[in-house]
Amino acid sequence: MATLPLAHQPENHPRVKAVFDDMRATRKSDFINSFWRTLAFDPDLLERTWQEVKQVMAVPSLLDPLTKEMVYIAVSVANACSFCVHSHTAAARAKGMTDGQYAELLSVIAVAGKTNQLATALQVPVDAVFDAGAGPADPARR
Amino acid sequence: MATLPLAHQPENHPRVKAVFDDMRATRKSDFINSFWRTLAFDPDLLERTWQEVKQVMAVPSLLDPLTKEMVYIAVSVANACSFCVHSHTAAARAKGMTDGQYAELLSVIAVAGKTNQLATALQVPVDAVFDAGAGPADPARR
Amino acid sequence: MATLPLAHQPENHPRVKAVFDDMRATRKSDFINSFWRTLAFDPDLLERTWQEVKQVMAVPSLLDPLTKEMVYIAVSVANACSFCVHSHTAAARAKGMTDGQYAELLSVIAVAGKTNQLATALQVPVDAVFDAGAGPADPARR
Amino acid sequence: MATLPLAHQPENHPRVKAVFDDMRATRKSDFINSFWRTLAFDPDLLERTWQEVKQVMAVPSLLDPLTKEMVYIAVSVANACSFCVHSHTAAARAKGMTDGQYAELLSVIAVAGKTNQLATALQVPVDAVFDAGAGPADPARR
Amino acid sequence: MATLPLAHQPENHPRVKAVFDDMRATRKSDFINSFWRTLAFDPDLLERTWQEVKQVMAVPSLLDPLTKEMVYIAVSVANACSFCVHSHTAAARAKGMTDGQYAELLSVIAVAGKTNQLATALQVPVDAVFDAGAGPADPARR
Amino acid sequence: MATLPLAHQPENHPRVKAVFDDMRATRKSDFINSFWRTLAFDPDLLERTWQEVKQVMAVPSLLDPLTKEMVYIAVSVANACSFCVHSHTAAARAKGMTDGQYAELLSVIAVAGKTNQLATALQVPVDAVFDAGAGPADPARR
Repeated sequence: MATLPLAHQPENHPRVKAVFDDMRATRKSDFINSFWRTLAFDPDLLERTWQEVKQVMAVPSLLDPLTKEMVYIAVSVANACSFCVHSHTAAARAKGMTDGQYAELLSVIAVAGKTNQLATALQVPVDAVFDAGAGPADPARR
Repeated sequence: MATLPLAHQPENHPRVKAVFDDMRATRKSDFINSFWRTLAFDPDLLERTWQEVKQVMAVPSLLDPLTKEMVYIAVSVANACSFCVHSHTAAARAKGMTDGQYAELLSVIAVAGKTNQLATALQVPVDAVFDAGAGPADPARR
Repeated sequence: MATLPLAHQPENHPRVKAVFDDMRATRKSDFINSFWRTLAFDPDLLERTWQEVKQVMAVPSLLDPLTKEMVYIAVSVANACSFCVHSHTAAARAKGMTDGQYAELLSVIAVAGKTNQLATALQVPVDAVFDAGAGPADPARR
Repeated sequence: MATLPLAHQPENHPRVKAVFDDMRATRKSDFINSFWRTLAFDPDLLERTWQEVKQVMAVPSLLDPLTKEMVYIAVSVANACSFCVHSHTAAARAKGMTDGQYAELLSVIAVAGKTNQLATALQVPVDAVFDAGAGPADPARR
Repeated sequence: MATLPLAHQPENHPRVKAVFDDMRATRKSDFINSFWRTLAFDPDLLERTWQEVKQVMAVPSLLDPLTKEMVYIAVSVANACSFCVHSHTAAARAKGMTDGQYAELLSVIAVAGKTNQLATALQVPVDAVFDAGAGPADPARR
Repeated sequence: MATLPLAHQPENHPRVKAVFDDMRATRKSDFINSFWRTLAFDPDLLERTWQEVKQVMAVPSLLDPLTKEMVYIAVSVANACSFCVHSHTAAARAKGMTDGQYAELLSVIAVAGKTNQLATALQVPVDAVFDAGAGPADPARR
């Protein structure tokens, strides 16, 4: 159960319909999950959130789509977001993640979670060698 | 400052020396960071931790080394582990991560952190379609 | 399901009854939620927890009641506490939070969650200007 | 120390300069903190992040500016983001937060953090009364 | 529902059967919980995870078994892992944890969660007296 | 650096002095750490926080003092509270924690952190056998 009622016909609202239509076209799927349908209570928040998710996750870029989904899963696990773990694991599967790749992803998340706790427990000081130092005069490096 | 004194000559202990030697050979670098040198107070914990990190991160596998480092960074950021963020960002750089790839990694971590909070705030119920369902009789799928 | 059985008639115990009576009077509602009924297994813990929640949340103070509920929701979201998110969102609604205010609260939580990840990923050093500095000789400033 | 070198003259880049100029005008202050100066390595990420922070935090809206800063602090504390805690506590002070209000904010954050742990430890089931239920046909409620 | 289907007869796989048999012998119980049965999709990950859990939790050592379970619960609560909170609270009960001890465990977890938030909110600098200092030349101290 | 200036002579305030005197008597040490000296800006918050810490941690009870410190460390590590990790590791040392016990504590925290991530990633459903069920009519069980 959510903190907001799920609207029965959210697409009666034109801005919600526009976002959902774009989502269907972008993802080539008719399914709109509960996150988006719940967020539809506020068209502003819905539009801004979808624009960012689309820009980062759906536009072809330097990182391949599956790598991005695996990073998304990793953050969602560490933040203990049940819905996000489910939806992005399903997305990674849809993008071809095999059982073997999933087992490796879980192994990396597990060892990272473990050494995070150890380094925090030991309060290990950051080695000077990791310092990125003072940068060049040229501001934007990309 | 750490919760344990950093040993001056940890390699006087043969098991610590063996781990450090293996680390240098595996990573092709003489540098042993403070995490490992602090953990050296307990050779058992040092050996077990290194074996796991080596197995997961240094052995060639289905996921490429840079993808694994990016997942490691993502978990470390969400768990707020300062040392781990630094050491694995340096490792990702050493494995070729460009400024452009780093900016994308940051963008994915950022949007994941944001939607994690939204989905948790809304307590969105997991859609039935995400259910992996009952599996086949064959136990291990890999 | 909880880690403790929910007592059927917790108010048979006089100290539990006293806390629940005070809760009903303070909140002007007969409803006692599952958190308090589960905590009732230990009257000491129940009393101490209620006293603090009452003191901080129910006594008129410098911050208005709705602001305090919104801060409570924000912490509960970041800590991924499902029960607390639900109960305090309901409390904020009972104190008049509109859909528009809720959408703004979600927007602030979302952007904070996002920039938290970015600043931790970048390990941005704290600017010297943020240093509160050495204080005056007078100890308690309130 | 950060994971990226701090550019010496980031405003040599026109898009960075445009963002920084807008930031100075919006905040009526010449100071640009290290978060923004570090993020300047990628003008895209800088622009998108600033647009969202500006939209949510700097545009007059239903919630007053100080309430929004207090919610921001609350999330940043729970996510253990040192930089964000510092910068937004300073922002809240600049918007008039008194010692008394700060002490109350800390009290709410503290009791929320405490009961979050208790409710998670007890795995208290969410009461049916908190269910927002099925909503009206009208999609966007704002 | 999980992100992976639960195999019906996981022990058809000999390595899975070997782990489950060792688990039953070690714990003197026929019950294998859903965590292990889900993890069985990847025999490598199952074996490595069980070996570590067995080594740390089931082998007699300096800390008594109940203390170790209480520490496990504490970490699982702070990480908001619902399954782990349940399974390790059950394990602590099986090892003799009384209601009184459980109430004290909850009290410590609660006050720690509370002061964690306060110290992070105040960004209290670590006192020099907590510095473990430079250690002796002898590397491994155990 | 903290978000509040550290008062030079906090004990000029009688309520602060009373708390600090009680702290010195309870802990048999003259040292008052920065957490308490920073918190002294608000005598109410200082008094309430100390009363709870004293009640839970300093009064002899069912759990021995070292076990309570180890649970405190575990929560503080998972919450990434640097100050708390330092102060409670020092407290555990003062209560006799050996290097061997510390290595075991770290091992339990590490394996818990690891399996927390795995169980959350797999979204393992809680087994029915962990349900504490419906309780007896008697409310308070302690």
